[in-house]
Amino acid sequence: MPNSKSETPQQIEFTQADRDGLYKTIFNRRDVRGQFTSDPVPDDVLARILNAAHHAPSVGFMQPWNFMVIRSKEVRQEVHHAFTKANAEAAQMFEGEKQDKYKSLKLEGILESPLNLCVTCDRDKAGPVVLGRTHIKSMDLNSTVCAVQNLWLAARAENVGVGWVSIIEQEALQKALGIPSDIIPVAYLCMGYVSHFKDKPELETKGWRQRLPLEDLVYFDQWKETNEEDDLITEVSKL
Amino acid sequence: MPNSKSETPQQIEFTQADRDGLYKTIFNRRDVRGQFTSDPVPDDVLARILNAAHHAPSVGFMQPWNFMVIRSKEVRQEVHHAFTKANAEAAQMFEGEKQDKYKSLKLEGILESPLNLCVTCDRDKAGPVVLGRTHIKSMDLNSTVCAVQNLWLAARAENVGVGWVSIIEQEALQKALGIPSDIIPVAYLCMGYVSHFKDKPELETKGWRQRLPLEDLVYFDQWKETNEEDDLITEVSKL
Repeated sequence: MPNSKSETPQQIEFTQADRDGLYKTIFNRRDVRGQFTSDPVPDDVLARILNAAHHAPSVGFMQPWNFMVIRSKEVRQEVHHAFTKANAEAAQMFEGEKQDKYKSLKLEGILESPLNLCVTCDRDKAGPVVLGRTHIKSMDLNSTVCAVQNLWLAARAENVGVGWVSIIEQEALQKALGIPSDIIPVAYLCMGYVSHFKDKPELETKGWRQRLPLEDLVYFDQWKETNEEDDLITEVSKL
Repeated sequence: MPNSKSETPQQIEFTQADRDGLYKTIFNRRDVRGQFTSDPVPDDVLARILNAAHHAPSVGFMQPWNFMVIRSKEVRQEVHHAFTKANAEAAQMFEGEKQDKYKSLKLEGILESPLNLCVTCDRDKAGPVVLGRTHIKSMDLNSTVCAVQNLWLAARAENVGVGWVSIIEQEALQKALGIPSDIIPVAYLCMGYVSHFKDKPELETKGWRQRLPLEDLVYFDQWKETNEEDDLITEVSKL
């Protein structure tokens, strides 16, 4: 089909305002564990956020994701129980002052957020052989993470806070949500409006770790090849 | 430190224009394999794109990523060689018409794009025990993918096309880029300005797979629990 609509170059112009909106979202997105209010997220807002997730890139266009909306208090109690168990185990892996600091951090908002969401990856959604997944098997999981990041950004722009709870056994999550063993629960998210967004990541302000200078993370052509005099590094240093 | 600056609720307002910019970017981002022009991407533009990537969420704030800028033609030739080998193997995994269609698809722009970039994950960047990675070991890889998605969106808003090349052996990529075996090359990307962006994913317009209806992907509380009459599904159907 020559000159079918999809092949016609209809350039969409991006304005400075569009870029500003995107960068503002990226720089102000936070991993939210507290500050949730009980205000429900309206269904039209949640629908837009899920639609943003659904427009993530996916390997072989397989769209391996499902979105599980968790409203049930009982299910959330079970997830919270699994978190509590895992978090106690995690605390024991740190020593001394680091353990004290770990225990002082709030790392989830499962019960107090108005909404939980689990983004899953169905690895068989497009059959056993998937274009683009033939040599790197994790590409479907990567696609699902791209959907999570789209969701996170859309939520921020809609003033909805999102926190990713990763201190939990995968099997416990599958059990609580009735997910078969071959479906991967990639992200368990707490979502809701918040009293305020922090202006920096909490792990930064609480001294857990600092943001690394971007200029130290850029290599050229080969691993660990740096070049302080490269014009790219000059531009990075100005940011 | 009560009332330290970072704790003060200084709400940043998001306008409809901000949201429009974000959604426009999300819906118009494409996996670009062709249409690259030879115009170089200016260093200030690339710096902004990398900075967007660097502001992705990361487990335990570990920021496990490095950004390898690949300009060398020789290195790219080696990567292209690894792609060609893997792609021939991949084609054999499809049968009949599907194989013919697979062979007709352009799946990379390694040599004709003005810039290649590899986003890596250094799993040891924050020591062996990482907050939030204690129970789900892949969280650092997930963080790196979030950085890739931020990068992809920032590039789109800057009118720079990005294509993720995943038909390649990880070991071959490590060899070509001098990456040690314990550092994971999560994404190999072709980047550059393009003559035009397609208005739909190529795998959709070429009939490889169709976009799934979002309403079929939403479950409630338990796996496969659907509810057509839920107000969320009504809102999703309106999109």
